[in-house]
Amino acid sequence: MPDLLATLRAIVGDAGCLSRPEELLVYECDGLTLHSGWPAAVVLPRSRSEVQRVVRTCREHGVAFVPRGAGTGLSGGALADAGVVIECSRMNRIHEVNTVDRYAVVEPGVVNADLSAVTAAAGLFYAPDPSSQQVCTIGGNIAENSGGPHTLKYGTTTNHVLALELVLPDGSVVELGSPTGWAPGYDLVGAFVGSEGTLGIVTCATVKLEAIPERIETLLAVFPDVVTACRGVGEIIQAGLVPAALEIIDRRTIAAVEASVYRAGLPQDAGAVLIIELDGSAVVLADQVARVREITTREGATRVEVARDDAERQRFWRARKGAFGAMGRLAPDLYVHDAVVPRVKLPEVIEKICAIGDRYELTLSNVFHAGDGNLHPNISFDRRNPEELARVVAAGREILELCVEAGGVITGEHGIGSEKRDFMGLVFDEADLAAMLRLRDCFNPDGVCNPGKIFPTTRFCVESNPKARGYARVPIG
Amino acid sequence: MPDLLATLRAIVGDAGCLSRPEELLVYECDGLTLHSGWPAAVVLPRSRSEVQRVVRTCREHGVAFVPRGAGTGLSGGALADAGVVIECSRMNRIHEVNTVDRYAVVEPGVVNADLSAVTAAAGLFYAPDPSSQQVCTIGGNIAENSGGPHTLKYGTTTNHVLALELVLPDGSVVELGSPTGWAPGYDLVGAFVGSEGTLGIVTCATVKLEAIPERIETLLAVFPDVVTACRGVGEIIQAGLVPAALEIIDRRTIAAVEASVYRAGLPQDAGAVLIIELDGSAVVLADQVARVREITTREGATRVEVARDDAERQRFWRARKGAFGAMGRLAPDLYVHDAVVPRVKLPEVIEKICAIGDRYELTLSNVFHAGDGNLHPNISFDRRNPEELARVVAAGREILELCVEAGGVITGEHGIGSEKRDFMGLVFDEADLAAMLRLRDCFNPDGVCNPGKIFPTTRFCVESNPKARGYARVPIG
Repeated sequence: MPDLLATLRAIVGDAGCLSRPEELLVYECDGLTLHSGWPAAVVLPRSRSEVQRVVRTCREHGVAFVPRGAGTGLSGGALADAGVVIECSRMNRIHEVNTVDRYAVVEPGVVNADLSAVTAAAGLFYAPDPSSQQVCTIGGNIAENSGGPHTLKYGTTTNHVLALELVLPDGSVVELGSPTGWAPGYDLVGAFVGSEGTLGIVTCATVKLEAIPERIETLLAVFPDVVTACRGVGEIIQAGLVPAALEIIDRRTIAAVEASVYRAGLPQDAGAVLIIELDGSAVVLADQVARVREITTREGATRVEVARDDAERQRFWRARKGAFGAMGRLAPDLYVHDAVVPRVKLPEVIEKICAIGDRYELTLSNVFHAGDGNLHPNISFDRRNPEELARVVAAGREILELCVEAGGVITGEHGIGSEKRDFMGLVFDEADLAAMLRLRDCFNPDGVCNPGKIFPTTRFCVESNPKARGYARVPIG
Repeated sequence: MPDLLATLRAIVGDAGCLSRPEELLVYECDGLTLHSGWPAAVVLPRSRSEVQRVVRTCREHGVAFVPRGAGTGLSGGALADAGVVIECSRMNRIHEVNTVDRYAVVEPGVVNADLSAVTAAAGLFYAPDPSSQQVCTIGGNIAENSGGPHTLKYGTTTNHVLALELVLPDGSVVELGSPTGWAPGYDLVGAFVGSEGTLGIVTCATVKLEAIPERIETLLAVFPDVVTACRGVGEIIQAGLVPAALEIIDRRTIAAVEASVYRAGLPQDAGAVLIIELDGSAVVLADQVARVREITTREGATRVEVARDDAERQRFWRARKGAFGAMGRLAPDLYVHDAVVPRVKLPEVIEKICAIGDRYELTLSNVFHAGDGNLHPNISFDRRNPEELARVVAAGREILELCVEAGGVITGEHGIGSEKRDFMGLVFDEADLAAMLRLRDCFNPDGVCNPGKIFPTTRFCVESNPKARGYARVPIG
């Protein structure tokens, strides 16, 4: 359908419509390397009105469309197999920063870290901080309900979104929520955050800003092994402390980081390090630092360092946030897993996860939000080796089953996407999934907006709407 | 339809099914005295299975049903005109209190304050604390997304619900969310909280528990007038403090309280008092108390008292939480209003609200969550006087319009119910309301579950589903 491309070009301009193979290659996958899909076209709208017109055009041509931010997602949520990718990076204006009522009004393409950089002068920051925050966008964060190391204290994206303007899959525009954080009627803002691009496309968001804490203290506790580090995390929480972050980095990850540009001087003989960040009033932090030092030492830490200045603090965080990049040194491919267990189960679950990795003879490393019980077992592999890939997939399944059995869930912050749709049945029964499908069907009844995501395609055959099939596969262009 | 009553009696037992006029009279209204409705019957189920069977029976007979907690709601949400009231007070078991992962699993009829009383021994409490917390139930709190004086620091009910088991309007059962607070797929828990009983009936809820703070300091600052007190609130927040509560009580309310059993020794010559509650580490509170004292004095407080012990703290709170009861002394009827404005607009809006009350020659008093910008202008009146009632309604409308014009919304924590459904158009346009109706229609397509609530019936005629009418009016019994 060449007239589809021509119409899209007329809407977004020639420079805003990509269709050559070398251009589309960039959009073949997101941060999940296991799945890929070849879009028919990529459009980069500059305004809500262009998004609306693109959506209506796709609809008229019977072609699926998929919203996309920076493509750093880890569950295949931004893949559009034969559909049109609506990439929001050109919608990157910050419309307003309100320092009295503490909110910002932003377009979806604003880069996460850029917002905090802009508001810092007013003593404010945007709290959700995924490890990809230097490049990922607020729109993508909203779609995936992204978390980050500071989720423990500050919550995930959903706790920071006050209002949304969206283009729905039928091309209509709605405004939901309110900058005051109070809104009558149904909390549709909450339902749209984390809906992985299946209910519409965010064109403007009002997000909360937080006061930069008076003081931040960052500690690094060195443990003989990852299980002991997990016990230390449990004791810190049990003591009634609520650190801003509690992050564990295991031995294999330390080795990868220390061999990379993110090198931070972490002790390579350690079984694991635990980063503890405390923030708040200076007067209370001195006491809390002493308590954390005492608890971690009692629980087996062989050394506890306190960052002496901001440079040292940045060094600890560089190691943590650069860990996934550093793993590129271990193998060509990396499968970043994501699951949550009740915090109290962490020590036993992490031990079993390591055993699963060993049993499948895989290179499994761990770097994770221990305070949230949010695990990231990472498997380094080479997908060109089908036998190894099969082991990666089998181990992944066992890890998820183990976490669910421990009372946990199959994703914390990376979403379901295409990656885990067939595991939804581990957590929800058919009635629960049918309730979610009712929501999808009332905004996206024909599945034209980001098809093939979240809901199972096999085993739990609960696609309630017979029209919800096939759209993504209509060939165009 | 005598067979409807017979079937209901067979499900819930004779003692659990009320249909005599003197029994139904109790259910004629909720805390909103402006609206009333006469139910056909009231059932008091003891289990999820009974709720399911009641719902299916109502459906078979084409009769509307309305979930109800303790009936303390303030927007008419629990009224069932000619329908069946499903009253959940007999489902009042606490199934589990998990002190490690800090949550409780409760039935909907558990009284709010009872939960904190049970968990206190473990050093935990349930944070949302509506003024009616001695009698209101968790199920009703979930339906209305209730707030309370401590919402400023702790958030509303939606921030404390981890998982829900619900009977949907079609009689099916779903379980949503997870005790870990993480759940894949759409955040339907968020959408159900605050849906005012229109999307289903909660039969079990998993709610977060918080650690009881190490120390609480409660201050009472005496101001010459309510506008100055509002300025003091703004300055406290601007200073970067986040008190647990910031509550204003105005002169008329003080007089009513001091004449009542809630008498607390408040200064009757004050224009307003501001209760400031601070909680957290003892080491940080001393400094915060000093700062609050300094700020309020600078802003015009003529006296600042600090509660010397828990008895004195309870005395301050007795005045605040007993205020609505005390207003019973001023007139037979009380219209408790509820609106939110950006905090920065509080001084100018409160002044204009008082002027509206004066212009309509009404007895208007204010006792409100100033820290949240959540106003409660209360109008004392006698509804037997139609001319006075007309002035009450007209003043109410002006107050809402004023708040919306100031960038606010028409309800903070009392919901829309039947009271404000025709004001939804002040905040949302037809497309926004249509989006909400889509959600209602996918769970409650024929409107049989709590009809006539939330959505406008006049002017904004957006009832999307032609079947969504008439159900409530089918006569039975």
